[in-house]
Amino acid sequence: MVARSAEAEWSGSLAQGSGTIKLGSGAFEGRYSFKSRFENEKGTNPEELVAAAHAGCFSMALALMLGQAGFTPRRIHTTATAHIERVAEGFKITHVDLNTEADIPNIDKAKFCEQAKQRSADARCPRHWRAQTSRLTRV
Amino acid sequence: MVARSAEAEWSGSLAQGSGTIKLGSGAFEGRYSFKSRFENEKGTNPEELVAAAHAGCFSMALALMLGQAGFTPRRIHTTATAHIERVAEGFKITHVDLNTEADIPNIDKAKFCEQAKQRSADARCPRHWRAQTSRLTRV
Repeated sequence: MVARSAEAEWSGSLAQGSGTIKLGSGAFEGRYSFKSRFENEKGTNPEELVAAAHAGCFSMALALMLGQAGFTPRRIHTTATAHIERVAEGFKITHVDLNTEADIPNIDKAKFCEQAKQRSADARCPRHWRAQTSRLTRV
Repeated sequence: MVARSAEAEWSGSLAQGSGTIKLGSGAFEGRYSFKSRFENEKGTNPEELVAAAHAGCFSMALALMLGQAGFTPRRIHTTATAHIERVAEGFKITHVDLNTEADIPNIDKAKFCEQAKQRSADARCPRHWRAQTSRLTRV
């Protein structure tokens, strides 16, 4: 239905080389390297791009579901954290944690949690949630 | 082992609202909306961020594998295209196409394809490849 692209170009060896990543929309182009991925050098890395996609999708999709339930969100803020770990066959993103805080006029806690959990289930995300007033945190 | 984060904040309804997506490294912060995701309004969208992660990971990982086989890539350019489609339960990224062109001194076509396919298998990507001289295209 919709196709979205991005490009990445790498030059040189893994350790000494570096690359650039560019979004198809043109909104961003930036450098990345082994050190920006696995250490703390300045630059981007694939894992934070995956996290950005999750955070962006979840916040937007929750706005959809709240709207269907009759609520208009003032603010939905999601932080996504992608964990990359060494496994037998190399490296793997083992899980992505989502932590969402929201400001939704006229909603009660139960209704808010119901919507957020439903959205999480749709997205096949982990199911373990901790709810607080006007705040929902998955741990 | 390594955790990488990003944030997204959405305000308002799905159709009328909009949001921002911010990478944890600080390399990028940009706006997104329903129209930048599903239509052609300026801005980013989660799908091109997923595509960027795939392209970045693949180009870098191929550099690793070529290095292990004794080659130093001059250039590995990957375009990733994420396809989002309507399915029974809503929308889904059904597949990501990767198209890689590379300039690798002293490599022959068979060796190049072997490395690229092996990397693709590691990444559990689709297996259908079309190889050309100094160019590998998955279709």
